[in-house]
Amino acid sequence: MKVAIIGGTGYGAVELIKFLNNHPYVQLEAIISHSQSGTDLASVYPHTIDAINMTMEALNISSLSKVVDLVFFATPSNVSKDLIPEFIENGVKCIDLSGDFRLNSPDEYESWYQSTAAKQSYVDQAVYGLSEIYQDEIRNAQLIANPGCYPTSTLLGLIPAIKSNIIDNQQIIIDAKTGVSGAGRSLSLNVHYSEMNENFKAYKLGEHKHIPEIEQALQWEAGVPLQVTFTPHIVPMTRGIMSTIYTNLITEKTTKEIIDLYQSYYENDPFVRVRPEGMIPSTKEVYGSNYCDIGIHVDKRTGKLTIISVIDNLVKGASGQAIQNMNILNGWDVTTGLKQIPIYP
Amino acid sequence: MKVAIIGGTGYGAVELIKFLNNHPYVQLEAIISHSQSGTDLASVYPHTIDAINMTMEALNISSLSKVVDLVFFATPSNVSKDLIPEFIENGVKCIDLSGDFRLNSPDEYESWYQSTAAKQSYVDQAVYGLSEIYQDEIRNAQLIANPGCYPTSTLLGLIPAIKSNIIDNQQIIIDAKTGVSGAGRSLSLNVHYSEMNENFKAYKLGEHKHIPEIEQALQWEAGVPLQVTFTPHIVPMTRGIMSTIYTNLITEKTTKEIIDLYQSYYENDPFVRVRPEGMIPSTKEVYGSNYCDIGIHVDKRTGKLTIISVIDNLVKGASGQAIQNMNILNGWDVTTGLKQIPIYP
Amino acid sequence: MKVAIIGGTGYGAVELIKFLNNHPYVQLEAIISHSQSGTDLASVYPHTIDAINMTMEALNISSLSKVVDLVFFATPSNVSKDLIPEFIENGVKCIDLSGDFRLNSPDEYESWYQSTAAKQSYVDQAVYGLSEIYQDEIRNAQLIANPGCYPTSTLLGLIPAIKSNIIDNQQIIIDAKTGVSGAGRSLSLNVHYSEMNENFKAYKLGEHKHIPEIEQALQWEAGVPLQVTFTPHIVPMTRGIMSTIYTNLITEKTTKEIIDLYQSYYENDPFVRVRPEGMIPSTKEVYGSNYCDIGIHVDKRTGKLTIISVIDNLVKGASGQAIQNMNILNGWDVTTGLKQIPIYP
Amino acid sequence: MKVAIIGGTGYGAVELIKFLNNHPYVQLEAIISHSQSGTDLASVYPHTIDAINMTMEALNISSLSKVVDLVFFATPSNVSKDLIPEFIENGVKCIDLSGDFRLNSPDEYESWYQSTAAKQSYVDQAVYGLSEIYQDEIRNAQLIANPGCYPTSTLLGLIPAIKSNIIDNQQIIIDAKTGVSGAGRSLSLNVHYSEMNENFKAYKLGEHKHIPEIEQALQWEAGVPLQVTFTPHIVPMTRGIMSTIYTNLITEKTTKEIIDLYQSYYENDPFVRVRPEGMIPSTKEVYGSNYCDIGIHVDKRTGKLTIISVIDNLVKGASGQAIQNMNILNGWDVTTGLKQIPIYP
Repeated sequence: MKVAIIGGTGYGAVELIKFLNNHPYVQLEAIISHSQSGTDLASVYPHTIDAINMTMEALNISSLSKVVDLVFFATPSNVSKDLIPEFIENGVKCIDLSGDFRLNSPDEYESWYQSTAAKQSYVDQAVYGLSEIYQDEIRNAQLIANPGCYPTSTLLGLIPAIKSNIIDNQQIIIDAKTGVSGAGRSLSLNVHYSEMNENFKAYKLGEHKHIPEIEQALQWEAGVPLQVTFTPHIVPMTRGIMSTIYTNLITEKTTKEIIDLYQSYYENDPFVRVRPEGMIPSTKEVYGSNYCDIGIHVDKRTGKLTIISVIDNLVKGASGQAIQNMNILNGWDVTTGLKQIPIYP
Repeated sequence: MKVAIIGGTGYGAVELIKFLNNHPYVQLEAIISHSQSGTDLASVYPHTIDAINMTMEALNISSLSKVVDLVFFATPSNVSKDLIPEFIENGVKCIDLSGDFRLNSPDEYESWYQSTAAKQSYVDQAVYGLSEIYQDEIRNAQLIANPGCYPTSTLLGLIPAIKSNIIDNQQIIIDAKTGVSGAGRSLSLNVHYSEMNENFKAYKLGEHKHIPEIEQALQWEAGVPLQVTFTPHIVPMTRGIMSTIYTNLITEKTTKEIIDLYQSYYENDPFVRVRPEGMIPSTKEVYGSNYCDIGIHVDKRTGKLTIISVIDNLVKGASGQAIQNMNILNGWDVTTGLKQIPIYP
Repeated sequence: MKVAIIGGTGYGAVELIKFLNNHPYVQLEAIISHSQSGTDLASVYPHTIDAINMTMEALNISSLSKVVDLVFFATPSNVSKDLIPEFIENGVKCIDLSGDFRLNSPDEYESWYQSTAAKQSYVDQAVYGLSEIYQDEIRNAQLIANPGCYPTSTLLGLIPAIKSNIIDNQQIIIDAKTGVSGAGRSLSLNVHYSEMNENFKAYKLGEHKHIPEIEQALQWEAGVPLQVTFTPHIVPMTRGIMSTIYTNLITEKTTKEIIDLYQSYYENDPFVRVRPEGMIPSTKEVYGSNYCDIGIHVDKRTGKLTIISVIDNLVKGASGQAIQNMNILNGWDVTTGLKQIPIYP
Repeated sequence: MKVAIIGGTGYGAVELIKFLNNHPYVQLEAIISHSQSGTDLASVYPHTIDAINMTMEALNISSLSKVVDLVFFATPSNVSKDLIPEFIENGVKCIDLSGDFRLNSPDEYESWYQSTAAKQSYVDQAVYGLSEIYQDEIRNAQLIANPGCYPTSTLLGLIPAIKSNIIDNQQIIIDAKTGVSGAGRSLSLNVHYSEMNENFKAYKLGEHKHIPEIEQALQWEAGVPLQVTFTPHIVPMTRGIMSTIYTNLITEKTTKEIIDLYQSYYENDPFVRVRPEGMIPSTKEVYGSNYCDIGIHVDKRTGKLTIISVIDNLVKGASGQAIQNMNILNGWDVTTGLKQIPIYP
């Protein structure tokens, strides 16, 4: 199978390239970059020298559609929404790592993204690619809206509790922490080394674009309207997300009972590892891998259920999950090309 | 005035030594270390070489009591409780950076610290040294229980809201993050460099010794029993604490109104900087200084008040606040020896 | 083919386990740990949970010899020398990641390692496993002494220049820098997080055990006695080594000419990437991979040739090269199980 | 005494501001910034909020000259050379942290800086402000060219050896490592957090602007022409420089003898700490302070003398030394405002 990547100079793209390079069934045919067409990948990413000998190209949708079966979009917001319709019409499947097709409601999109939504008919056919939860829909999709990094860790952590009706859906607090690579490769004083090193920051309180994405999926699962409190923070490290999720139990449960419930929920999902009692995952324990590790703690004093969910933001939170979705789409084993265990230390 | 430090080899002690070295009214007379008596400070902390020429000594309470007016305890748990009574009887004031005298209730102490509480008559006379809140009591104290690092950032962030009756005291969630120096200088795999670098961890969920300390002070201020949900995390950096505090407003308030309330509450406190709207403090913005910076955010969608409070855990969270308490105790300007602005970048 | 690892709790072992897990021709049969026998790997290394379900075992040489074809030793100094002879006698091949069999001269060994050398007859049959240089000998070895991390980066950087007689062999200066994982998992104040973070240190000036190993191989190649000046430093990062090597050219050469010479020398070696002019490799550009990247600079003003050689200390500097040697030993493609490109960022 | 800072938004300026804030004899009258005039300092550097209430101003040389006695230039290259002459003519003393007046030879300047040199009559009256070495000249200067960070650590490490004729001046190799703050606050992919974290890089081999500055001062001291080999590297940390300097002894000396020689050379210099035998300084041991710590090692095997010199690049390597020079210029105790011991950990 032949694929292309559009948006070839960001971290999402280079991580896709790494996984595709090890994937047994797929050939990476083209890397498209508007800003760097004609440039060798190795001059933009020297770590690929002699390993990936490709030159970035300008985009020509019609010619590209003839040679590839699937396109990954690793573009910033507001790019894929204008390009994907033509690919779809040409019969090319699309996996979009940007947020352009994630929100069903154009009003929500325009309010949070402050720009015009994608054409509604394409939004309607987009499948939200949270692999473990929506694999049946993914299997038949033409267009997959690959989830954001924060929503991936948060939703995998929350959905089993929501589905089993053990928590108060109206009082969910998500305190999320990300490594710096989540901010991408664009220069900014916020992620200038000397400003970010030995520093820990909160940002975009109540304003992050991932909030409506989290709420939309939780509402699908809960079947009722709900809102969450979500605060993102940035950690002085390159990779990793931890979502610490605070909920109120509405029925008495022990830590062990909830772990059993989660392990049962994910028993057929090789990339979700629900930890045994007393073992809370840290971000490094999933570094460079497609795992989402989940720790559970019930505070007997206060009746709160705390859920801790960790992923590598560039893998399960972006490119790894995109590969996982490609595997599902093609009926391949979901772990194909993704078997790497975490890099440690 | 002459002082001594007991527990001379930990990070609390070395930070005290740095501040005392710049303090105009105080002479550091002795550094006591059980394990390193007879050793030069510079061989344990080479950065002090040629700057602080002192040798660590064994403890002799009666002779030390004759030469010093005040003793700082920078000892681990369960040490000061057996030593402080004799100093107090000898008329030497004590500032204890450990937790031995912080909890009024021996039951609480024994349940959270898993060891025998200090003698109750001394616990009863200990003043909880949260400088901005209890300065009147501190002024006349013989024995000051210097607050823990997490309680300092959390309580300074919460008390104005508690005192003004704008939040639901029964639904407080504290998501706290600390730099690694909070774990001290004792070796442990948890803070072994290769394990902690590029890693973010949660730990001691629902079990941290600072929980009863936070609850005790909040109860004093609220006048009612309450419990908090508190989750500590460890950040791959050396210094800094951020407490992200989630509360439910029980009365409608804007961000601006609450900032005004906080600025008014702390208007005479030079070390608390309540930030203007839209400006959330990061930990590096207080690095190496005695400041506690507070950011306020009201989420209009959900009616939640989020309070972000940052300190340097070794300064305002330990040794700096101990110096501040010594200043209050002696009627000196509270900023004496502590005027250093944060080191940045 | 079936293999075992002896010394199962260190970073060398866990990195071997990661590579073996992806290797198509090899089955990891046992992980031996003296101190942790009976313990699940996942309780020592939680990142392996649900991925590698193995329990560490005590060593029984005779029974292990019956089930495995090859044993990796990831033990500290002074362990393998007493165990390897019996495995060899039992017909089991051994790849030793420790230094016990690297030095041919027992006097050198005893002087630098301050302990008794291995039995000379086994030292004599050990092949020094610097894969690119000694592949012919490796192919027929029973016992491979896998090189140290510093020697690997230094020797791959220097040998082409030595072999082509363009430098003064008597004036070689190696300024080497390693990530902290090189110090292993044993606790020490030197690599305690708060001591090592935001710090850069030199250590063991003129005393590092890798000095005689470097000199021995350079003497083999140069055919004359020589000594090097070698200073190791430790960098606040987990992985990576850079050797900055200073030499005096004895014949006039341009940067380009020397690059050509190096590229030609390594033209059949997929893991050595000699960089084009003006492109100096950094450590992150080989992170997590088995590459050794080399940059060349001739200073026209001073006539010095500076060679910069980078590796991942745990991969090409230890476990990756051990896998590479296993591949050579078995006649498999040298890149089998090692095709992973560097993880970036 | 009243002073101003020109170039108010860089790290050099903000570090000057911190030291001036604690200086007993000096009043900071104005902070000049071309790009940010009219902006509050606290909006550019939030850590100064409520501590330094100043607004950045546009430059008006004639009015500024009437109110200040001394101006610090913390500007990029090629700015001060056009501004300083007018200040000097107005009788205002200038301390220039940029390189514009450091090189005596206009040819050297133009070759290394690739731009026109400052007017020669002002270059001629500029005193090179390496405080310990040129204090007599500094005392009477109108214009001080404050040294670069690498030259400061390198020259303080080398000059005692040069002056005592114990090394071969023609074979000096300097392997230097800096924290990232040396690159300033300007955005660049090289110091983008995700690119620089967990990375170690060499850069500008043989091309760094500090090379002629080092050679010029060494030639003054040696009295003969000489060239050095100098390779700068960048370390994933914010602050600190280590220069590892390799020299050939031309006379037999022990480590102890050379330490004695260095301690004697610097016996009246409180900011240079020559370490005793076996104690090599690390960068963190001078963090945030104005110290230069020097370690000495003679390798008996090879007859090489290795000198390790560490500073905080923003303090002794820039702003701290500028304050020290201001102290010397005014006849104040050299340590005034600079007594802070290093921040550790």
